[in-house]
Amino acid sequence: MDAKLVPLKRAPENVFREFLVECTCDISGSQRSSEDSPPRKHLQWRNFFSLQIQYTVRLCEPLLETANPLLGEYLSPPNSSRRFCIIDSSVWQNQGERIRRYFETRKVTCRYLILNGGEENKDVKAVFQVLDALCEFGLHRREPILAIGGGVILDIAGFAASLYRRGVPYLRVPTTLLAIVDASVGVKTGIDYAHTRTSERFKNRMGAFYAPLAALLDKTFIATQDERNIINGLGEILKLALVRSKELFCLLEDHASELIRTKFQGTGVADRVIELSIEIMLEELGPNLWETKLERCVDYGHTFSKILEMSCLGDLFHGEAVNIDGFLCVLLSEGRGWINSKQRSRIFHVMRDCCRLPIYHPLCEDVDILWQAILDGTEHRDGLQRIPLLRGDIGQHTFVNDLTREEVAAASRKLSEINKSFTESLAFR
Amino acid sequence: MDAKLVPLKRAPENVFREFLVECTCDISGSQRSSEDSPPRKHLQWRNFFSLQIQYTVRLCEPLLETANPLLGEYLSPPNSSRRFCIIDSSVWQNQGERIRRYFETRKVTCRYLILNGGEENKDVKAVFQVLDALCEFGLHRREPILAIGGGVILDIAGFAASLYRRGVPYLRVPTTLLAIVDASVGVKTGIDYAHTRTSERFKNRMGAFYAPLAALLDKTFIATQDERNIINGLGEILKLALVRSKELFCLLEDHASELIRTKFQGTGVADRVIELSIEIMLEELGPNLWETKLERCVDYGHTFSKILEMSCLGDLFHGEAVNIDGFLCVLLSEGRGWINSKQRSRIFHVMRDCCRLPIYHPLCEDVDILWQAILDGTEHRDGLQRIPLLRGDIGQHTFVNDLTREEVAAASRKLSEINKSFTESLAFR
Repeated sequence: MDAKLVPLKRAPENVFREFLVECTCDISGSQRSSEDSPPRKHLQWRNFFSLQIQYTVRLCEPLLETANPLLGEYLSPPNSSRRFCIIDSSVWQNQGERIRRYFETRKVTCRYLILNGGEENKDVKAVFQVLDALCEFGLHRREPILAIGGGVILDIAGFAASLYRRGVPYLRVPTTLLAIVDASVGVKTGIDYAHTRTSERFKNRMGAFYAPLAALLDKTFIATQDERNIINGLGEILKLALVRSKELFCLLEDHASELIRTKFQGTGVADRVIELSIEIMLEELGPNLWETKLERCVDYGHTFSKILEMSCLGDLFHGEAVNIDGFLCVLLSEGRGWINSKQRSRIFHVMRDCCRLPIYHPLCEDVDILWQAILDGTEHRDGLQRIPLLRGDIGQHTFVNDLTREEVAAASRKLSEINKSFTESLAFR
Repeated sequence: MDAKLVPLKRAPENVFREFLVECTCDISGSQRSSEDSPPRKHLQWRNFFSLQIQYTVRLCEPLLETANPLLGEYLSPPNSSRRFCIIDSSVWQNQGERIRRYFETRKVTCRYLILNGGEENKDVKAVFQVLDALCEFGLHRREPILAIGGGVILDIAGFAASLYRRGVPYLRVPTTLLAIVDASVGVKTGIDYAHTRTSERFKNRMGAFYAPLAALLDKTFIATQDERNIINGLGEILKLALVRSKELFCLLEDHASELIRTKFQGTGVADRVIELSIEIMLEELGPNLWETKLERCVDYGHTFSKILEMSCLGDLFHGEAVNIDGFLCVLLSEGRGWINSKQRSRIFHVMRDCCRLPIYHPLCEDVDILWQAILDGTEHRDGLQRIPLLRGDIGQHTFVNDLTREEVAAASRKLSEINKSFTESLAFR
């Protein structure tokens, strides 16, 4: 094949004309002799484009203090007097007054769209609610949406922002520990997709990679969360610790109880845990924002958890499901001799005693379900398992493509045993 | 403000840590003295990412000849034996046998999803049909979808591909003249959005910028189109000629009737017209794929046409609406003295006599509707009109932001007069 790229006059950096002189081949791929038919000449153009993405993740508290100009700084046009806001209904209940006062003081008229959080509401219906409201508001092409809430609200709002007019800007303000360390850091948006006929639900099956203008993180919001939701956030933090940071693991080992009790409102350790979590996430996501690379250590705990979460919608929180999955993976590592029983016990202790996260769910005894989760994951990871497992010290991982059903069955049995003896030991305390 | 960017260890090219030392300001923006409160120190991270987009637009005929390996070359994994295809129902009717034979010969099992074209079907329902089928098929993350059809099918398929698993690859095979020179060249996908309560329909209000792997253009498909649909394609070609290319304009002036009669199946002029149209589109779109720049000369004829098309769903084709809009804009230019009446007559002649495109619709007499279209366009173009108008010679344009309602009313009256005298002249022929 003979090719020569000629730049187009008005787009010399991007678009190139190319003539291909091609031999005619038959289906088997063997070349015909030139007497049979002359070589074909094809014209094609190639378009090379570099899309520049840039966003900020910023720690800033307290965001809703009227003297803090930050929420206003991203208004467009710069002196706009209106703002479209999507707000979590539970945040609205706790902080609605403050939010209203903030914008009233700054003479900004807001359209508030209040949505319910919870995985069961992360669906197409919510996206249509946002799009309807955006059409009514007549949002301009470059006018940013402000989203305040947990991960579900941020995922819905970001997704709707990516769709409306093929993309309008948006600002993320996470109000839960989980959203601060997870949903706010990268560029993923999306919803669960329910098959229109069967209603079978597929987690995050519909979405977009779409960067926000900025994520503005104010941990004072965490103070209004209940204990279970804070523990939910610890699920993702502990996951990061397991695959990437012994320091973070030790901080949780020593301080998780205190962090739950104080709801991360202290300075020293609480700030360090949040900072470390965000930095690790950014290091992992930053160079791979569009997931060109499908081996991602942040996918630890995200193989079996999807099916668990979808099967127990509303009953099992995301961070809880991730932790159960994460502990099953600890047992898979142990089964391969990649970590020892002492390490496993130490991880179990941090999960259960320090972070008070669940490590078991009855569905984990169903090997068919677990194996289906691996098959689903393989589809999503382009035909290979690419499952991150711990190997060596805590904070170190590797990827596997050869997990067998037998290994999964053994880990599942082991999990039941551990859970049983733990439950019994509780009964005797 | 004092800032210093420190690269993160594991993502030194992408992610930077930054400390901001900020003076506390009150709402009015005036600086407080440092005795009042110490300067705040903020931590933030900045993520810079360059997403590399690359796609090919290739002239290649005949695509469905079993000896042509092209449709198979993009299979993934490389020797995959299955393929998910979205096909226009009218193409399926005419070419279904050939398509089936092509893949059967190559031992590729296909799931064919047949969708109806037509703007009235470019809606959320069609996208769900695709997503349902993709879930059933279990399409892998890197397995490309093949879309064969007119612009509506390509827009729906590309949009669904952008959504499923946050984006899977897709191939575009346009089968209409309009889709060959328009929908296939850029990266726009999307559907019309109907408000869930009021059912008001907003053209292309929901979509994504999402590049295909490649667009494979085979003009033999045009041979099966009826005359009106070929003329529809000429609407977009003539638009490009008006704003960018006198050569293309003269080609249409001299050969449009012949091109309609032969359905672009000749070589010389037919190929040149298609090549020129694609190159002009690529030059305009290529450096501005994500529409960072909102002044786009290819938006000529796309200000009033949206409202016309949505009001006459199914009755007025896209290229026809664009041409009516384009002629109204000719009159706006003439009103400003930017083109003279001789140029206007020549354009009218090419539009009406050579290309047989409509230049009038009764809705164009309703100045309220026309003005509303300008207001809608202004929302979409971030607060400015940015309307491309002809100025100087044919093939040259400029952008305006200051069109008045009076100018639009005058152009509307002039259009009625021209239409009336044209219709009368027809009656006397």
